[in-house]
Formats: sequence, C-alpha cells, structure tokens
Amino acid sequence: MSNIRHALSVKRSDDFSQWYQEVISAADLAEESGVRGCMVIKPWGYGIWERIQRLLDDRIKETGHDNCYFPIFIPLSNFEREAEHVDGFAKEMAVVTHHRLIADGQGSLVPDPEAKLEEPLVVRPTSETIIGDAMARWIQSWRDLPLLTNQWANVVRWEMRTRMFLRTSEFLWQEGHTAHENELEAKEHTLRMLEVYRACAEEDLAMPVIAGEKPEHERFPGAVETWSIEAMMQDGKALQAGTSHYLGTNFSQAAGIKYQSRDGTEELCHTTSWGVSTRMIGGVIMTHGDDDGLRVPPTIAPRQVVILPMLRGKGEDDALVAYCEGLRAKLAAQSVFGEKMRVLLDTRPGKAAAKRWDYVRKGAPVIIEVGGRDMDGGVVSLLRRDALWADNDKPSFQTPSLDEAAEQMNDLLQEIQKNLFEQAKSKRDENIVRGVGTIAGLAEHFSGDRKHPGWVEVQWSKPTGDALQQVVEQLKELKLTVRNVPIDSEAVNGDCIFTGEPAVERIFVARAY
Amino acid sequence: MSNIRHALSVKRSDDFSQWYQEVISAADLAEESGVRGCMVIKPWGYGIWERIQRLLDDRIKETGHDNCYFPIFIPLSNFEREAEHVDGFAKEMAVVTHHRLIADGQGSLVPDPEAKLEEPLVVRPTSETIIGDAMARWIQSWRDLPLLTNQWANVVRWEMRTRMFLRTSEFLWQEGHTAHENELEAKEHTLRMLEVYRACAEEDLAMPVIAGEKPEHERFPGAVETWSIEAMMQDGKALQAGTSHYLGTNFSQAAGIKYQSRDGTEELCHTTSWGVSTRMIGGVIMTHGDDDGLRVPPTIAPRQVVILPMLRGKGEDDALVAYCEGLRAKLAAQSVFGEKMRVLLDTRPGKAAAKRWDYVRKGAPVIIEVGGRDMDGGVVSLLRRDALWADNDKPSFQTPSLDEAAEQMNDLLQEIQKNLFEQAKSKRDENIVRGVGTIAGLAEHFSGDRKHPGWVEVQWSKPTGDALQQVVEQLKELKLTVRNVPIDSEAVNGDCIFTGEPAVERIFVARAY
Repeated sequence: MSNIRHALSVKRSDDFSQWYQEVISAADLAEESGVRGCMVIKPWGYGIWERIQRLLDDRIKETGHDNCYFPIFIPLSNFEREAEHVDGFAKEMAVVTHHRLIADGQGSLVPDPEAKLEEPLVVRPTSETIIGDAMARWIQSWRDLPLLTNQWANVVRWEMRTRMFLRTSEFLWQEGHTAHENELEAKEHTLRMLEVYRACAEEDLAMPVIAGEKPEHERFPGAVETWSIEAMMQDGKALQAGTSHYLGTNFSQAAGIKYQSRDGTEELCHTTSWGVSTRMIGGVIMTHGDDDGLRVPPTIAPRQVVILPMLRGKGEDDALVAYCEGLRAKLAAQSVFGEKMRVLLDTRPGKAAAKRWDYVRKGAPVIIEVGGRDMDGGVVSLLRRDALWADNDKPSFQTPSLDEAAEQMNDLLQEIQKNLFEQAKSKRDENIVRGVGTIAGLAEHFSGDRKHPGWVEVQWSKPTGDALQQVVEQLKELKLTVRNVPIDSEAVNGDCIFTGEPAVERIFVARAY
Repeated sequence: MSNIRHALSVKRSDDFSQWYQEVISAADLAEESGVRGCMVIKPWGYGIWERIQRLLDDRIKETGHDNCYFPIFIPLSNFEREAEHVDGFAKEMAVVTHHRLIADGQGSLVPDPEAKLEEPLVVRPTSETIIGDAMARWIQSWRDLPLLTNQWANVVRWEMRTRMFLRTSEFLWQEGHTAHENELEAKEHTLRMLEVYRACAEEDLAMPVIAGEKPEHERFPGAVETWSIEAMMQDGKALQAGTSHYLGTNFSQAAGIKYQSRDGTEELCHTTSWGVSTRMIGGVIMTHGDDDGLRVPPTIAPRQVVILPMLRGKGEDDALVAYCEGLRAKLAAQSVFGEKMRVLLDTRPGKAAAKRWDYVRKGAPVIIEVGGRDMDGGVVSLLRRDALWADNDKPSFQTPSLDEAAEQMNDLLQEIQKNLFEQAKSKRDENIVRGVGTIAGLAEHFSGDRKHPGWVEVQWSKPTGDALQQVVEQLKELKLTVRNVPIDSEAVNGDCIFTGEPAVERIFVARAY
C-alpha cells in the first residue's frame, strides 16, 4: 500500500466533487465573489484562460475570421423575433430596467423610477440576435459572403445552481457567427469550427474529445443542427466542452439577413454560430488533476518551468540566485510550441519545500529546486509534475546538470504534453463500454456499485418527437443523457435498444455535467 | 492652390466633428448598433484595439501585474459604502432588477415580477468596490503587499450624449487596481502607471501627451489624487486619454482592506487604480487622421503592409499573384517592433485603384500596388500613407525593386512611426500658447475668430473649495476647462491669472472632449 502523503486533503476516489472544489482553491484558480453565481478568476486561473484564448484565437483567425465587438445589451424585442430562441433563454436572463439610482430618503439607493427604460435591455446570454442585426446591415450581395466574424466577450445566464467554471451566471467565452450563401457551405463551416474545437481541446488542452452531433432535444434554441465536443472527466461523467451550430435560415429570417444571389434573386443567408467558454478550464481540471492538485498541460501553463532556489537568508544566497538566473535566462531564450518558453524564477521569501508544494498544487509542468549542494555539483533537482512520485513514495527528483536541463527542456515539455494527453486518452478509452444491447443492460451498467461507470455506446433508431421524448424520460430515470452521435463511429448492425426498431446510428449515453 | 481630390468628402478644416464621423465610417472602424449609446466595433477598429491591448498588456505585466477577472455585477450596497464614489456614478448606472422574462399575455415579454432581485445589481461602471472586496479577502500581512492586479473588461456608464469611441454607454478598457503598505509606495505606483500610459501613448500610438495632475474638482470620485495624460487633437481640443488615481485609504476603509504591518499593528492599505479605454482609438483618429481618412501608426496597424495585385481576370493573373506572394512571404518572414510583420496580400476580386483608396481611408501604413509592368521590371509601386501626395497633386508612388522593398520595409515602418509622432508633436507644440497673463487675455485668445485655439498654459495659485469653484465657473463661461498640471513644467514666476495671488504652478487650459 502506498504511503504517499498527497498535497490535497480529498482524493478523487473519495469525493470527486469535493476534490474539484479543493483543486480550484489549492491551485488558486478562482473563488466565489459574493455576487450571486459570479466568480473571481484569480491570476493562475486567468493565466490559463489567456493561454487558451491566444491559442484558440490563432486558430479562429487562421480559418479566416475577424474579431469584432458587439453590445452587451440586447433590446428585449430582438429576442421576440425567434420563438425557440427566446423560449430557450427567457428563464435565465438578467434584465436591465433602469439607468439611474436615486436616494430613497432613508440612506439607501434605489433605481430611480424616473429613469425607467422604455424597453428593458437584456444582458446578452448569447449574441445571435444582435449580431444578426449587424449582418443584415453588412450583407448586400453574394460578394459579401461568407461573412466570418467572432467576438471574445462575457455573457450572462442566470443559473440557479452554479459551480465554478462549469456553470456560472457570468462566464467568458468566444462566440463565432458566420453567414453563408447556402446550406452546404454553412454546414461545412459548422463542421470546420467543430474540428477547430477538437484540435484545440486535444492539441492545446491535451483533453481528448469525441466530436459528434447532438440529438434533436439537445439542440441550441433556434438551431437546425448542434454539434459538440464531449470530454470524459475522471469520474466518468461527460463534459460538453464546445458546440457548433448550423442555424439554417431561422435567424436570417428573424433579422432579415438577405443577399442578392449570383442569379440576381434575393435569398436568405444560412448562418452558423459556435462557442467555447471558461468551462474549458473546468474540463482541464477534471481531465488532468490528480490527488496532488492540478496538472496544467505545458501549452496552456502560465509558467511552464518554475525555478525555486533554496534560500537561507544568508550571504551565499546571492551566488545561488545568480546560478538560478543563469538557468532562467537559458530557458527563457528558448522557444517551445512556437512561443517563448515561460519561466519563473521565484525568489520571494519562504521555504523552498512550501513553495514546491504550492506549484505542485498549481500544476506547473516542471519544478526545479536548486540548493547549495546542487550548485556545487553543477546540477539541479528537477520534478516532472506528470510523474511526481518515485517508487519509494517520495517526490521523483531527477538531477541533470544545469546545461542538460536547459538543453532538454523543450523535449521534456513536449513529452509532458504528450503524456498528459495519452494518460487521459487511455483512461477515457478504458471507460467506454460497447455492446450493451438492452435498456436493462444499460440500467445494470449504471447501477449503484460502479463508482465511475463512464460512457456506454449504444445503437439507436434516432427517434424524433414523442418517441424521442420517451427515450429521454427513460434515460432521465437512470440519470443519463444522450451525449452525441460521434462523427467517426462504426457502422450500425442491429436494433435500437430503446425502440427495438432498426438502429441507424451509434450514440454515447452518459451522466453529464 | 492644390488640386488634390481627397478620399473623404469632408475636410478637417471645414467641419472637424463631421470629418471624425466620416473617418470612422470610411475606415470601417465602428458603427451605431441600434442599442442606445452602444457601438459595434468592426474588424479594422477592433484590430487596432487588439494591438493596443497586446502592447499595453505587455507593459502592465512588465511592471509586475497579474491579470484577473472580476464580476460584471456589483451589488448596490457595495456602492453605498464610499459616499463620493456613489455620488459620482449613481446618475449613470445600468441597473439589473430581474432575472427572468415572462409572457405578458399580449404576445410580448416583460420582466417577471416573481423574479425580482432582492438587491438590485449594477453593471460595473468601474470596479473599485468589487475588487476592494477581493483585496480584503486576499491581503493579511505586509508580505502580501504590494498586490498588483489588472483586468480587461467592458464597463457601462449611461451617457446622455454619446460619440463613437469617445463617449459610449458601454466601452472596453483595462482597469488596474493595486494595494500598498503606505502612501509613498502607492503614490509612486500611481506615477509609475501614469508613465506606462505616457509611454504607450507616445511610443505605441505615436500620440504625444502631457502627463500631469488633475485639479481637485476633476478628481475621480473617491480619489485623493488623479493624474492624467492629455493629448491635443487636430482641432486644438484636449482629450483625456488615460488616468491614474491615488485613492488613499478611502476604498480600504470602505471595504476593510487591512494588513498586519511589519510592527504587528493592523493598518489600512493605500490603494491605486488606473485605466485606459477604447477612447484611445478616438485619440488615434483625431491625432493622425487627415483629409483622406485614418493613418494608423505601424505599431498598432492590424496590417502594416497591404499588397494589391492589379488583377485583370485573365490567365496572366497567376504569375502576378505568384510575384506578389513572393513579396508577401519575404515580408511576413521579418520582424518589426519585436513582432512579426503583418502583411496582407489582397487577391479579392475588384479594381486595384478602388482597393487602394479603401486602404488609404483605413490608413494602412504602406500600400503596394503591383501591375504587369511592375512585375516585368522586377519592381513594385509603393505608397506611404504618411506621405500620400506628390508635388503634382498625384499619389506619390515610389518604385523600388521587389527585393529593395522587402529589405527596406522594416526601416520604412519605423520611419513612418517616427514621422507620425513628430508631425503630431510639432502640431501640438505649435498650438500651445504661453505668456497669457490675464483672464481677458485668455478670453481673447479663445474668442470666435480663432478656429483651433489650442491650449494655453497659465499660472495659478491652485485655489481650492469655493475659490476654485469660482475659477471653474469663469472658465466655463469661456467653454474652457483646466486639463492638468504638467509634471515637467517650468518654475512659476508671477501671479495667478484668476485670483491675483502668487502663482504656485502652471496649468493647461483648453476646450476638451
């Protein structure tokens, strides 16, 4: 039995939900703000978001999109134009009704009744309707198409039960919005952006995902098709990490997004929208975290290498800091993943061991400690966060020479990135079950005993309407949901486990966040 | 007399305000959104903002700040704690009162009376109070100080009269917030960030500014000292382009931001805050724009070089595009101002001349046209946006060889950057008047005849309270304001032009945006 003394007080296997909260606080990622459902994102958490933003923004620009910025306020009447859309969001909108405060005569401030807005404004929960207005102004002819736009913004959805990063009333995201000449091009673009999300999740976040189409009842309000990337968390639950929607002409009709076609006729545009949010950070935590805290993939780590001199508050500290600074400079001069290596030399007062555990909890990919003896031997003590413990249950320090450490760092960071992805992918693949052929089998698989039952891939007949509703109810009783229909699944052979009719596609069934 | 046919319909000298609107539309920077007081920032405008963000963010991080993110909503009660602060903002706050919409039975949606918030939430006009709450949680001892934080965010101030970029109900900005052990350090930091703003304005935006302290009546609500950078627009008016505030212990007291001192006593922190916004883009337009549109300094231009092949829709186009692509690749492989050169090869259908004027209006620093004859001669036709017209009133094309153009581009972009700054600085300095010694003299200087009267530097006795109020009223009659007390002005000698008392400092008096 292992005698490892882990850096967190709660283990994943004991209480995953509690563990998640502890990682967020121990890695200093975010905290409750005191404002209902809103969080404060702290430097290490926001640093990860800045990295995700930068990498994803590059991918979005490479596919031809320009960034814009649209108003945070949307007039109520905009929402009324698309019936499904407003039904989907009306229950969770923050509504601005006044534009001034006034003293109530009892020492407090109240909204000034004289400053009531004629038409209330909604704080955007998503921007299809306001961007649709702009598209209607911008597009005249087929020459203006495709129109490819994106914005990085905050949005607000008034959630009743919130959870940091996963579901907060305010969150940060990017939302892409495009307009095309026809269905084919719009659908192609919907899938192009889904692939951008897959690549970002897997290559940048080292988070394996399944890309596929959401079933009818899980579509974005107002969409014709909704596609998602789904990631498996370490408790076996699914996290929808990004969505891409083909909106048909629904929003074009509502906002009047028309163009003169190559034949001179007036046509409606086919539009798409797609978004990923700070929820991704929740995915990173639950994909890569371990019982010692977070492990951040090097591509998105605010600091990839942290150097900790073991200072003693004495004269010899100067030489030690100079030795460490030599290493820092050698590393900071290098590139990795096409960017400058991000290195921190931490010379703040405090014990090196305490700082080590801070950075272990934060999940810095490589932690280097340097004491007087290391310096005398020309070496450093190097810890890989993805391989923290040695067989003797102690931290697994390597002691390369300073020059070796510097020379090999690029390779090492790439290896850690790869290793995190592969660990996550093996775990994910091990927890996907195939061959369940009946509802009873499904029920059994997800029954009480199995702590992390993962996902089950089943075949179904793609029911719609009431028949689909029945399936959803059946699954709901088992606390299950349909995740998506994977793009690259095997061909079907056999019957739908719900309806008994011939199956037409494979779907993933799972518990979900 | 010049026979130049300018690219805009309105000249600066004819109607500066109309000209400003035309530049924004002709350069495709932004447009009215249809939502009261909110604008849509379009790709070229947002591209400039992204450049400013990147450059300023680097400077903010170099001075030791970490980025965070704080909630957009602030409980009303937070504002009530600091009396001056709430007085300053209560009249222009967007207030969220409901979290759900409901059908009114007549086909419309209304805020659901059942979903009225117990305490209204204000959409942040600035974040001192909410960040103050976080600081109070984060700071325990002097070891936690200084606490240096910053956020990039949208804020809302309900303006009655709006103007794109200069004064909009929603705008984008960064707001830095710091806490320090004592007055000295906090004041030093206030000036450090003012200097960051000066450097950003002058070096990145090529916009000369005067850094100085605002007079008492122009302080940020709740501040002890407010400092600003002030830029002179081409109509002689002043634009406050950034501010840095020393807040004393006002907000610490209100939010309980305390620390245990080195002596073990409990003390209040001294805090600062500072911000610049999308208003900066208005400053760039009115500093560098000319009668042909915008001129964007190369450091912040979304595209520094635009290459326009003169396509004829025929077979020989391929060779021309290949020739241009050769140039594009040579340029894109280079660095300038420490970043990759930003080059666009525009092969969209359309006449080269029409595209040339589009990019002239947008203000791309270098525009290169290439026709068949250029290609045959191994040359390109190059236009500097900062030196557009030749003596013969025609566009001033140079025709370097393709290789020369590639080799000299780095130097050329630096020269353009420098030239824009120097042009703006000469213009500014020519329009600063010194030696006005009486109020009558001031009135005369700003009387009707002079179209662009610029700024006047006068000496005053730094009156406070009622005496100051009198001065403010006197100035108001002349439509004038006190801008700031420049940091590096000459010593005073003589009397205050307002009070007749001995002068203690020099101030700039001007009309302002």
